[in-house]
Amino acid sequence: MSLSHNTQNPRSMRNLLREEIPLPAAVVYNSRLQHNLQWMQNFVNQRGVKLAPHGKTTMTPAFFRLQLAAGAWGMTIATPQQARVAAGAGATRVLMANQLVGRGNMQLVSALLVDYPQLELYCLIDSVENARQLGQFFAESRQNLKLLLEIGVPGGRTGCRDAAQVRALCEEIQHWPQLQLAGVETYEGLIHGECAEGRVTEHLQQVRDICLDLLTQEKFTTESVILSGAGSAWYDRVADIFVDHNEPRILPILRPGCYLTHDRGIYQQAQAAVMQRLERLEKTERFDGHYCPPEDLQSGLEIWAYVQSLPEPGMAILNFGKRDAAYDAGLPKPELHFRPGTDPAPRVADEAWQLTGIMDQHAMMKIPDDADIQVGDMLALSTSHPCLTFDKWRQILVIDDYFNVLEVADTCF
Amino acid sequence: MSLSHNTQNPRSMRNLLREEIPLPAAVVYNSRLQHNLQWMQNFVNQRGVKLAPHGKTTMTPAFFRLQLAAGAWGMTIATPQQARVAAGAGATRVLMANQLVGRGNMQLVSALLVDYPQLELYCLIDSVENARQLGQFFAESRQNLKLLLEIGVPGGRTGCRDAAQVRALCEEIQHWPQLQLAGVETYEGLIHGECAEGRVTEHLQQVRDICLDLLTQEKFTTESVILSGAGSAWYDRVADIFVDHNEPRILPILRPGCYLTHDRGIYQQAQAAVMQRLERLEKTERFDGHYCPPEDLQSGLEIWAYVQSLPEPGMAILNFGKRDAAYDAGLPKPELHFRPGTDPAPRVADEAWQLTGIMDQHAMMKIPDDADIQVGDMLALSTSHPCLTFDKWRQILVIDDYFNVLEVADTCF
Repeated sequence: MSLSHNTQNPRSMRNLLREEIPLPAAVVYNSRLQHNLQWMQNFVNQRGVKLAPHGKTTMTPAFFRLQLAAGAWGMTIATPQQARVAAGAGATRVLMANQLVGRGNMQLVSALLVDYPQLELYCLIDSVENARQLGQFFAESRQNLKLLLEIGVPGGRTGCRDAAQVRALCEEIQHWPQLQLAGVETYEGLIHGECAEGRVTEHLQQVRDICLDLLTQEKFTTESVILSGAGSAWYDRVADIFVDHNEPRILPILRPGCYLTHDRGIYQQAQAAVMQRLERLEKTERFDGHYCPPEDLQSGLEIWAYVQSLPEPGMAILNFGKRDAAYDAGLPKPELHFRPGTDPAPRVADEAWQLTGIMDQHAMMKIPDDADIQVGDMLALSTSHPCLTFDKWRQILVIDDYFNVLEVADTCF
Repeated sequence: MSLSHNTQNPRSMRNLLREEIPLPAAVVYNSRLQHNLQWMQNFVNQRGVKLAPHGKTTMTPAFFRLQLAAGAWGMTIATPQQARVAAGAGATRVLMANQLVGRGNMQLVSALLVDYPQLELYCLIDSVENARQLGQFFAESRQNLKLLLEIGVPGGRTGCRDAAQVRALCEEIQHWPQLQLAGVETYEGLIHGECAEGRVTEHLQQVRDICLDLLTQEKFTTESVILSGAGSAWYDRVADIFVDHNEPRILPILRPGCYLTHDRGIYQQAQAAVMQRLERLEKTERFDGHYCPPEDLQSGLEIWAYVQSLPEPGMAILNFGKRDAAYDAGLPKPELHFRPGTDPAPRVADEAWQLTGIMDQHAMMKIPDDADIQVGDMLALSTSHPCLTFDKWRQILVIDDYFNVLEVADTCF
């Protein structure tokens, strides 16, 4: 499946450089999207793991459909509302990487299971109290609910912290016939700081061993046992460790989300570390040597905006802001500069042009006093991280490499 | 006009405490909304200025209609898309407190003027280049465009910085018959730090004097001359200074936006300073003494969420995050705590419960080890500032004081 409509005459498509799009706009390069899509699918295929990309990143059903068509096992999402979007986009397996808490939310899931009887939906669980609440609700609704036991990181977020919690939780789940324990889940992305790689490795090994232990104890009520981890920073380690056992019932599932558009900030850094580890791995004798892909992920999401004002020397004001772009992992970074009606094509933005501040609807950019810049010039900016840029938009423009708009993709936040 | 449907049987309305709403949800208390609405309208009425509330805060047409019905002169917005929403909500005067830059954006405004022939639309201008671009575009489209000359703050954002810029800009505007200079605008909210009040006062006096000066020079092509300023922090000073002249053609217009729902963070602080200044003013002989309203603005916007996990002592995880609430002016603050099925009514949240972190879809809350809290408990949290909470939601729930949902108001971001 492709978003590209090659039969269309480019002149009939709206073009960014011809100023046929009001700015600011959020654009995704189709070629980079397709590249990243295939890159990650190849990776999981070669590693013998399954992919349930985290859909919360884009919440764009058109992109979910691409991910599923490329071979994803299912979709990961974070909320019951997002689960419905994933099911609507054709996912038959949906992993809600979150606890299901509260009657209103349980009702959403219950209705979803009625509307999609074939849907395999998994939720996380980490407390006896939640097991009781879910057990009661789904006993009343006479529906089965598949659960993954979450193992957390001390000082991190959700998830059981010790063996006693795991034991008590498994016992409680067994009291409720509607609750089916179907696997174990973790999110290692919460481990930061010094010696992160060692601690991530240790944590993942522990999680795998808990899963193997629960298997031995026959705690799972499903034939296939899911063992899932991985954001976009450590998916290589998760793949490595979650296939390292001799238990055929275990299905290792990775859940990266940001890889699809990637970025030029925190995920570019994280991916550089992934690539280093993959190269290191290639040099060992343990693997076949084809795990390190020849090309890397590409940054494919940009905000396009206008220079709106040049009010004083050294300062440009752009017409986008916190309502248009992520700003919590560094400010957006100018990538391209284009003067409509004058330039034949965008040029790489001067490295000296740097954002110094951002407000709701404006961004401040520092420029040299003699910068070649005018009110009405366009800038394309990369942002980090992608999740918090996507959620600012109701529509994402998918463009070709000539800046023609191939498709307007609706988001469903 | 009121959002309250008093004829409805409360039992037939969905209720937050009965868990009939999936959480997280963004709610606005109708009583506080109505209070704030009337508070600000009374203020401007008494001060002899007009109100064009900044609609970008809520981007909720149902609230725009309330503001207009309460007596607002028009609506302020930040973009051409927002201008269309304001016009659609019935505003006949729309002040776009922003430069109109780029063909795609000019086309949106041009189409809007065609669709709403009675609409009085004003845009800001601060550069000769932009005047040329607008002049050319609107000469081609044969439409008139009303402009307000923006005066900026040094080191701040958009707006002319000196008399030479103002002079050159006025000259350029005069070359283009379609461009109508209709007034002067500033945003004093960019002045921060030490001696802010003195610097704000001085800046506002300068802006007023520039307007008076341009009037003397007959630079305005409209009968009525707009003199506009004010976010939600200094509107009292703007009102004070922008009426302090003897020029009947001048129409002073305030543009606060956040007052409608207020907050418990930066705008609560700013409003405390406003109230102090109003009290100080009452004690002088200059005013009649009825400018200080008996009650203050009320915080009316909350995020309701569940306690999703209590994974380790001292830590609770809530099921909302950066995608649900503002987090750039302090983290959300727990206000109410409610245990569904047990508590008769929400209690004030323990002051020791404090957010320590926020991720895309989760928040971390510090609690005492012996806190009376359970998975499945509800929390209501205030946020700051409101603009960046509103834009996370496609629907806002308007509730009565018994937590019944009176109306589901669509946002138009």
